[in-house]
Amino acid sequence: MTDLSNDKTKIAGVVDVIRAKRDGGRLTDDQIDWTIAAYTRGEIADEQMSALAMAILLRGMEAGEIARWTAAMIASGERLDLSSVARPTVDKHSTGGVGDKITLPLTPLVAACGAAVPQLSGRGLGHTGGTLDKLESIPGWRAGLSNAQFVRQLTEVGAVICAAGDELAPADRKLYALRDVTGTVEAIPLIASSIMSKKIAEGTGALVLDVKVGTGAFMSAMAQARELARTMVDLGTAHGVRTTALLTDMSTPLGRTVGNAVEVAEAVEVLAGGGPSDVVELTLALAREMLDAAGLPDADPAAALGAGRAMDTWRAMIAAQGGDPLAPLPVAAEAELIRADRDGYVAGADARAIGVAAWRLGAGRARKEDPVSAAAGVVLHRRPGEPVRAGDPLLELRADDPRRIADVLPYLAGTVELAEEPPPARDLVLERVG
Amino acid sequence: MTDLSNDKTKIAGVVDVIRAKRDGGRLTDDQIDWTIAAYTRGEIADEQMSALAMAILLRGMEAGEIARWTAAMIASGERLDLSSVARPTVDKHSTGGVGDKITLPLTPLVAACGAAVPQLSGRGLGHTGGTLDKLESIPGWRAGLSNAQFVRQLTEVGAVICAAGDELAPADRKLYALRDVTGTVEAIPLIASSIMSKKIAEGTGALVLDVKVGTGAFMSAMAQARELARTMVDLGTAHGVRTTALLTDMSTPLGRTVGNAVEVAEAVEVLAGGGPSDVVELTLALAREMLDAAGLPDADPAAALGAGRAMDTWRAMIAAQGGDPLAPLPVAAEAELIRADRDGYVAGADARAIGVAAWRLGAGRARKEDPVSAAAGVVLHRRPGEPVRAGDPLLELRADDPRRIADVLPYLAGTVELAEEPPPARDLVLERVG
Repeated sequence: MTDLSNDKTKIAGVVDVIRAKRDGGRLTDDQIDWTIAAYTRGEIADEQMSALAMAILLRGMEAGEIARWTAAMIASGERLDLSSVARPTVDKHSTGGVGDKITLPLTPLVAACGAAVPQLSGRGLGHTGGTLDKLESIPGWRAGLSNAQFVRQLTEVGAVICAAGDELAPADRKLYALRDVTGTVEAIPLIASSIMSKKIAEGTGALVLDVKVGTGAFMSAMAQARELARTMVDLGTAHGVRTTALLTDMSTPLGRTVGNAVEVAEAVEVLAGGGPSDVVELTLALAREMLDAAGLPDADPAAALGAGRAMDTWRAMIAAQGGDPLAPLPVAAEAELIRADRDGYVAGADARAIGVAAWRLGAGRARKEDPVSAAAGVVLHRRPGEPVRAGDPLLELRADDPRRIADVLPYLAGTVELAEEPPPARDLVLERVG
Repeated sequence: MTDLSNDKTKIAGVVDVIRAKRDGGRLTDDQIDWTIAAYTRGEIADEQMSALAMAILLRGMEAGEIARWTAAMIASGERLDLSSVARPTVDKHSTGGVGDKITLPLTPLVAACGAAVPQLSGRGLGHTGGTLDKLESIPGWRAGLSNAQFVRQLTEVGAVICAAGDELAPADRKLYALRDVTGTVEAIPLIASSIMSKKIAEGTGALVLDVKVGTGAFMSAMAQARELARTMVDLGTAHGVRTTALLTDMSTPLGRTVGNAVEVAEAVEVLAGGGPSDVVELTLALAREMLDAAGLPDADPAAALGAGRAMDTWRAMIAAQGGDPLAPLPVAAEAELIRADRDGYVAGADARAIGVAAWRLGAGRARKEDPVSAAAGVVLHRRPGEPVRAGDPLLELRADDPRRIADVLPYLAGTVELAEEPPPARDLVLERVG
């Protein structure tokens, strides 16, 4: 009778796959390949995939399952061929943080040091911003490139930040949108396979992962972040991509700005040799990792930054996509300062709270189809460790509409924490996984 | 900042409910009420509800949550008012088994003993048959009644078997169809609330549950079946319905027939005072439970059966819904016998395998919208415990199309197990939960 059951199984199809994972089993390679292909073709319904995603979240996946799942997602679309690019290719991916504009100075910096950086980015959803949303605050700049344009710019400028095409890991595109609305984002197998399927399909030769840890990140616990980093490094390595990861602190926002145009302005400051020290430190640390992974260990990113070569590449990169790197950035019509009520030191700034505030001021979107404001955001006038006097500005809220500021204001008391003594210094780079 | 998160929570809505259950929390009464109402209104998408169903399946629900979930499903539609029916009302529900035609003789039998039986039934899906599908093999009989027709027949005949209206627990109707395709059927909180919301909304004053245990049932383990029975009895009692349950064996099919017309014919044999002993035994056991629950402990169902009063009520019940109780039933065009290859005793007959075979011969449907064959099915020529000689017929397969028989035949070898000695006798009623 086993055979008759098997026959029934074929009719049931995806229900049997769901039940296998639900009951704690390991999905077979055939089951995984079929599931991803059938979901991409629309033969598996969203309500079936979300039930499977929840079962994966609660039951987990073995390393071999995650590898096969990732390979199936890559196989759902095309894999770019960057072999015509003479320079070594290396990309960076961040798991998402508040004020994380590092991609902006890092991409031209690494290109200025001799590598080619094929950075396919996404838009923001929820409280963490999106690199494309930030760059779109530059007048004229456009995110969409054809594959041919992408490869040409990578060859000629060495640096591209653009939107991933629809044909890159389409299974992931569909699944990512589904997970967002079904409470199934926070599963390490699904996060790791989502990120790595896109990065591997993009065709990069090497990859450095910036895995964020802390209140402003998806992973607030070190052990989880380490597991995610290890899973992704193993996936990249298995697909022939030299992959390493840094675990970095995301308990306070990076730099002094959270938003779109404000973050671009801060990135330009860094490229000009200034900018907040934490943004500079993380940009250089990631640049060194990327150049090592690209086989360029002797490159000197600090020198390239100081000599203005990274700024030259930035301007070429922006101009190649229609942007005017010297045009003034949009400025918000409305601004409001939150001031210190006493003397002291800034002990902390809640990254998640500030990220949510910037999002609700207009810098982010609640739904995929929402527009974002280029000018809205939050500026931190004082960062953790800095002294303040009563009456000094702590946070500046910017928006196009004063009602947005009025809505957010009541919730921001205490977001920037003051103390009598300066807080102990925190490490920005916590650990390396390679 | 907690307040700002809460604000974000309202935007997220159902995602927060999913995450709460996913992380092992207890859903609040407000969350449950809102979720069921919003799902019924179509504001919660199927892919969100299926993720929640999977989280409930894997994380469970406390008794208080199940009670609230059930109450919310009842509140999603109307609750019938049977107070105009003078006789005490009592219904029976079976969790579904192979060859389970007990409702057919039981309903008129209990009515013939003085109770009113408001039996709202469903159609079959998968390997267990549906009572309405069986009755529809009777020429002229129709399953659909208005509420007014339902109450009138209940008053005049005392027995109704008909389709539940769309307005009865519509949340359950939607969720049941969703669970079927998302691998989320086998969750005790969801099974119990689904069954009980419909039965409580139906308005019956008392209810007896026939919880099946064994290979042919949803619950193959005794402990699970007992937990399901206890959960449902508590839910009924909490809503003022006198509820008891019998746990009964479903490792072999009930009686000698599995299908539609063949099961009706067997039910009529029982009403005529004959029929297989197990069908008679279970019908009488459930009748006694129902009459006790209806406050008629002195009624004598065996006498009512013997005197032909149950048959009279059957005929009246069928005629009231347009059926001709004396018309010949459809007969299959094709039949094939499977014969014993040696002498011995029937040790067992795999209920699930025979149920799947009948289903694939045409008696059941793979999808909700499929038609069923009235005449298709399986006849057991020998039941467990009976002696056989080599060459004796064991199973008879019936279908409208010979290809269906050819498809099923190769898988049926060994379904009826033969042994040298007769098997030990099995109890049909295993336990009572009240």
